[in-house]
Amino acid sequence: MIITHKPEDLRTFLDEARSATKRVGFHPTMGALHGGHRSNIRRAAAECDVVAVSIFVNPLQFGPDEDFESYPRDLDNDYAQAEEAGADIVLAPPADAMFPEEPVVTVRVRHLGDVLEGRHRPGHFDGVATVVTKLFALSGRCYAYFGEKDYQQLVIVRRLVADLSLPVVVVPCSIVRQPDGLALSSRNEYLTPTERAAAPVLYWSLLAGKRAVEEQGVTSVADVRAAMVKVAGREKLFQLEYAEVVDPLSLAVPPVISSEIRLLIAGRIGKVRLIDNVAANVGEG
Amino acid sequence: MIITHKPEDLRTFLDEARSATKRVGFHPTMGALHGGHRSNIRRAAAECDVVAVSIFVNPLQFGPDEDFESYPRDLDNDYAQAEEAGADIVLAPPADAMFPEEPVVTVRVRHLGDVLEGRHRPGHFDGVATVVTKLFALSGRCYAYFGEKDYQQLVIVRRLVADLSLPVVVVPCSIVRQPDGLALSSRNEYLTPTERAAAPVLYWSLLAGKRAVEEQGVTSVADVRAAMVKVAGREKLFQLEYAEVVDPLSLAVPPVISSEIRLLIAGRIGKVRLIDNVAANVGEG
Repeated sequence: MIITHKPEDLRTFLDEARSATKRVGFHPTMGALHGGHRSNIRRAAAECDVVAVSIFVNPLQFGPDEDFESYPRDLDNDYAQAEEAGADIVLAPPADAMFPEEPVVTVRVRHLGDVLEGRHRPGHFDGVATVVTKLFALSGRCYAYFGEKDYQQLVIVRRLVADLSLPVVVVPCSIVRQPDGLALSSRNEYLTPTERAAAPVLYWSLLAGKRAVEEQGVTSVADVRAAMVKVAGREKLFQLEYAEVVDPLSLAVPPVISSEIRLLIAGRIGKVRLIDNVAANVGEG
Repeated sequence: MIITHKPEDLRTFLDEARSATKRVGFHPTMGALHGGHRSNIRRAAAECDVVAVSIFVNPLQFGPDEDFESYPRDLDNDYAQAEEAGADIVLAPPADAMFPEEPVVTVRVRHLGDVLEGRHRPGHFDGVATVVTKLFALSGRCYAYFGEKDYQQLVIVRRLVADLSLPVVVVPCSIVRQPDGLALSSRNEYLTPTERAAAPVLYWSLLAGKRAVEEQGVTSVADVRAAMVKVAGREKLFQLEYAEVVDPLSLAVPPVISSEIRLLIAGRIGKVRLIDNVAANVGEG
């Protein structure tokens, strides 16, 4: 596996792969790789001829009071996991290789970026969209693997690709969970043992909403949300930020639940902010 | 020469050209081609193996009170000129092929887009940057030819390419002028004969500023501007919007003129808005 810190090396390597008619898979990450990333990379390796992974903790997507400085970084461990999962090249650029100066030209996300996470993290998705556009410009034509864990990000990246006509096919990857239901996340590392024991509450809350839709036939958004909030409220360590029921593409709250929807939840356990989501389909029970 | 209205056809054609190791030249335009465009296309044809031209009157870069509806459109004439100048493919997409829906994800230009033209045309450069990013995503790796006539646009496109790491080399092309000095522009078509006779005033004003810097050794920005304004004021049909002296890369007004600078002018003759610019070099006289 090639390890490089120079963005242009990724471009050159993947241009050459495409010249040899190879199918390119790309998995952008912020490092601190875990089983979720490995699963995504393995899928890319199964579906593509060449797999690139980027590791870049993107300063543009962190707010001033967020955990940019303390975000877990362990490149040697990341390289080992990426290689084991089947990556052919890892780009791990220093911040000044990606942004030698503060960018003057950036990418902006309108309404899709203002709801849910965007309401709690102003500017977050503009930062995501800017760095993803840049990474896609470096990777060139590819299949890009994005986890459903960051569901809103996935929706926005798909829209980014369409709106800017990028030569990219976005491939959504299922969430990988611990046996007790906690979605894998680099931020789980921050949890104390007591907090870790409380963390599956997000998933239980989502499952309560999913059962309401699929098994009990509830069609009222307020009632489904109430079912989620009730379960979330049972865990005293959890401070709920939002529990939402939205259209899976527009992220708008539907007047009534009549087709496939997405349930999303976010909140804090101690100082750790966690998010999770599931799909729910009317009449699936 | 291939003529297509489908954006994806441009991508396919140029991907195939690159696969055959051909060097791709690209000249994005808003149509109403004239001698300036032909000169740019001819240069691209001399320097590249394959030349693509796009013709798209971009709604995103026009303000609500501007001339989007009346902007000159004559595709058959454009095709003939592009072919004569050496284009291999012309993409002339309808608006709904470029923007099937209003884009949610757009490109934004910070301070470079707020001065000069941006101050008189709010949002203009966000619209330019969004469509140029999209056209570059469609064209892929290329040499992109941009006229110096839209000098601020050229500076911004270069910055766009750097900030978003696009696989594009921006090639600036000299302004083409009529014998009396008027820079070629699609908007010159709007001028009545009387207005046309007055229109070289922009160039005379720029030359007065250039002479002040290069021949008279003037180093005060205010004095150079005054020399430009004085000449501009002699033509009663001309309403000056701005006459500026700026750094050629940052577009900032320097405290004193000590190196290469750019002189820019904009204003109206009747209802027609015209712009022009020249370089000036200290000690060149």
